[in-house]
Amino acid sequence: MKKILLATTMLAGTAGFAAAEGAVALSGSAEMGIWSDAYGDLQFWQDVEVKFTMSGTTDGGLEFGAVIDLDETNVDAASGQDYPSAYNDDSGTSVYISGSFGKLTLGDTDGALDWALADMDNGLTSITDDHTTHVAWFGGSDMDGKAGADGQILRYENTFGAFGFAVSLEQADEGEGLVDDTFGIGVKYTANLGGTDVNLGLGYQDSGDRDGSAIGVSAAATFGGAFTGKIGYISFDDSSRNLDSHIGAELTYVSGPIGVGVNYGKVEQVVGDSYDSWGAVANYDLGGGAKVEFGYGSDVNGLGDDQWSLGIGMSF
Amino acid sequence: MKKILLATTMLAGTAGFAAAEGAVALSGSAEMGIWSDAYGDLQFWQDVEVKFTMSGTTDGGLEFGAVIDLDETNVDAASGQDYPSAYNDDSGTSVYISGSFGKLTLGDTDGALDWALADMDNGLTSITDDHTTHVAWFGGSDMDGKAGADGQILRYENTFGAFGFAVSLEQADEGEGLVDDTFGIGVKYTANLGGTDVNLGLGYQDSGDRDGSAIGVSAAATFGGAFTGKIGYISFDDSSRNLDSHIGAELTYVSGPIGVGVNYGKVEQVVGDSYDSWGAVANYDLGGGAKVEFGYGSDVNGLGDDQWSLGIGMSF
Amino acid sequence: MKKILLATTMLAGTAGFAAAEGAVALSGSAEMGIWSDAYGDLQFWQDVEVKFTMSGTTDGGLEFGAVIDLDETNVDAASGQDYPSAYNDDSGTSVYISGSFGKLTLGDTDGALDWALADMDNGLTSITDDHTTHVAWFGGSDMDGKAGADGQILRYENTFGAFGFAVSLEQADEGEGLVDDTFGIGVKYTANLGGTDVNLGLGYQDSGDRDGSAIGVSAAATFGGAFTGKIGYISFDDSSRNLDSHIGAELTYVSGPIGVGVNYGKVEQVVGDSYDSWGAVANYDLGGGAKVEFGYGSDVNGLGDDQWSLGIGMSF
Repeated sequence: MKKILLATTMLAGTAGFAAAEGAVALSGSAEMGIWSDAYGDLQFWQDVEVKFTMSGTTDGGLEFGAVIDLDETNVDAASGQDYPSAYNDDSGTSVYISGSFGKLTLGDTDGALDWALADMDNGLTSITDDHTTHVAWFGGSDMDGKAGADGQILRYENTFGAFGFAVSLEQADEGEGLVDDTFGIGVKYTANLGGTDVNLGLGYQDSGDRDGSAIGVSAAATFGGAFTGKIGYISFDDSSRNLDSHIGAELTYVSGPIGVGVNYGKVEQVVGDSYDSWGAVANYDLGGGAKVEFGYGSDVNGLGDDQWSLGIGMSF
Repeated sequence: MKKILLATTMLAGTAGFAAAEGAVALSGSAEMGIWSDAYGDLQFWQDVEVKFTMSGTTDGGLEFGAVIDLDETNVDAASGQDYPSAYNDDSGTSVYISGSFGKLTLGDTDGALDWALADMDNGLTSITDDHTTHVAWFGGSDMDGKAGADGQILRYENTFGAFGFAVSLEQADEGEGLVDDTFGIGVKYTANLGGTDVNLGLGYQDSGDRDGSAIGVSAAATFGGAFTGKIGYISFDDSSRNLDSHIGAELTYVSGPIGVGVNYGKVEQVVGDSYDSWGAVANYDLGGGAKVEFGYGSDVNGLGDDQWSLGIGMSF
Repeated sequence: MKKILLATTMLAGTAGFAAAEGAVALSGSAEMGIWSDAYGDLQFWQDVEVKFTMSGTTDGGLEFGAVIDLDETNVDAASGQDYPSAYNDDSGTSVYISGSFGKLTLGDTDGALDWALADMDNGLTSITDDHTTHVAWFGGSDMDGKAGADGQILRYENTFGAFGFAVSLEQADEGEGLVDDTFGIGVKYTANLGGTDVNLGLGYQDSGDRDGSAIGVSAAATFGGAFTGKIGYISFDDSSRNLDSHIGAELTYVSGPIGVGVNYGKVEQVVGDSYDSWGAVANYDLGGGAKVEFGYGSDVNGLGDDQWSLGIGMSF
């Protein structure tokens, strides 16, 4: 999605302004098409979104910013704030500061495990997100935003050459201390194996007595400039949610305006059978911000019902 | 309302940007005044709105875009989407693509009957819409967005010289197929009669067993550059809503900053008496986007109670 | 908060536009930090806001405009409009026109008493507003937006040299006339006392049988360019809310990037003991729109429980 830096661009040409205090960038997206839901009902789909991306720099060189989407402005119910109710923490938004010390992000952002691991989203989009919402899809976020947590994650990250790491904290009950918080740590490393860069990730998150803990690894690499393969695995110590392990993989081909991909996920349970599901996605770039998008998810409700969509995705 | 094309304007003067991927235009409107409601209670009125208008062009020359208002961002309840509830189709928004093949619009847009027929809105505005919300007002939309339908209309339209046509489809129940969908077809033709252009419209919409069908015609012409007259008529085959016919007419005078108009509507029912109502509107353009606006509706609740407003409408 | 005048800036450099019809300015703010609530629970705090500020000028030189925040777009419940429910008066927004005759503002704005009196907010900010939300905090707004009123205030104001005055009206029940409206009048005067400007305020608001009436005075002055002191007092004739008087004071020190302040408030009741509370605030300006902000309120729930916050406030 293209970002339009309104303030800075204009200020550059406007002597009347004293000094830029920051910029509010405005970008938009829209979707138009058809989708078939889990009941097999074929229907229209349209969606429009506007995003505000804000950024600034302190006199000392610290960068700071925030992001909010147009549909994230009335979120009291989901805010997780228990006192006072009028306080609205804008779930879905995030705020950051960064500098030579690294970067600190607070809000609707990835925990350290999710941050470290690859997402099996094929780097492509479908209008109703079919290829990333099937039941066993692997996104690395299994330990974030769970029951009792408030969805506000604080994450610190930094990078040293090919090595990056992050630590994160998500509070369980707004600091009341009755339920355990979730701590996380993650590392990323880019290894050059025979001329090919392989992105490795390793992460751990622990939510104490709430949802147990999990450790995960992933690897991703692009071959021949067109094929990207990813694989990820998370092992849970989590009796409360009956989770034993989650594995995921994807294969994606991108060439010129064409992108196609498939992904697969499988969840092993502590008690009961394992279940798996897969997704497929295809994009054709029409240029100017428009893409033809197809998506498929093999099981979107745990009953084996699939879902697909076909339409045009637009970015402005 | 003036549209401000942010991105394109700025990008033109900014060599640093690679290529425009589309534009997000920002415009606003506001109202300030007094109104007297159906109970005769005289009170303050203020309203503020922001609109985002997005547009782009593909490499192949297709145009695409979308529109969303600031108050249309949390519409789950009205979205009509029955599964899954988290899916939000942004009722009130619309998305389109257009090219040499014509134009395809999806969302909160007119069905083909409404598209073809004239609106008796006098082309003028009042702060509480008194002149277009009286009970028998004729807007041509009698067959759109009715009970059971999801409010998402897909419309295809094209123009050949003085002739235009459109077809439309509104689903009744998100593709479940239990309730009949609404199909429509409409044509527009501009006839030159004795030196005066007369805009003619003819449309038909059929909702099957749901709300029956309707056929409508309208004619509109401007005389002497100042007077505009319109007349419209819809005949229903609609037992479920007790509608037999709907007639509407308006007369508008516009000269320089002044615009005044009256409109009239009358509904014949299958069973029971007919009912009618009328509206009046006057605008005085102050320039710069501000207008003094007066509006009146003779019956806004079916009980004969009238409503009026007086204030300033602003566009930015 | 910095305002970015999008339209005017761009139009100046764009010959293709016919004439500016007004401008929509986009600005943003964000907060990031920790706060301790009244229960002593220490937790994360993040908040993101976008504001749209619109302005225009008529051909005759009248200025007009409106303001709306991103989180004020779905306010039916709070709108106070009782008929029809679909009408939304956008509480939280305001609209104005101004010219040589003065300025007329409608919406979420100060009544004349509040307009005339000083706010004990120290001119500084804290991320969870701790220093301005303690129970006896003095903001001068005791007579605005009370039970039964609709929160829409109409205020006329004008200035003659060092002298300014305002009158205001807030309706109690959307013009039904069963409950008394609130009228107000206020005056401001800047007196030069021994070389120091002292800003004086005097105001009166009367809500009839609803919440009685109140008269208030305040004085504010800055000494030596760094210290600002304010004091205010309101005397109530208000049996329904058990209010006898409200006194408030603040002392603020600002020098370079540093601002620190304390404020105090005390409420005398007609029946029962008086109660008081105090707040403290400290800001350190990092430049570029970012500030480190600390806030404290000694009693935020009437039970003696305090609240504090520490974080970064950002403006874009």
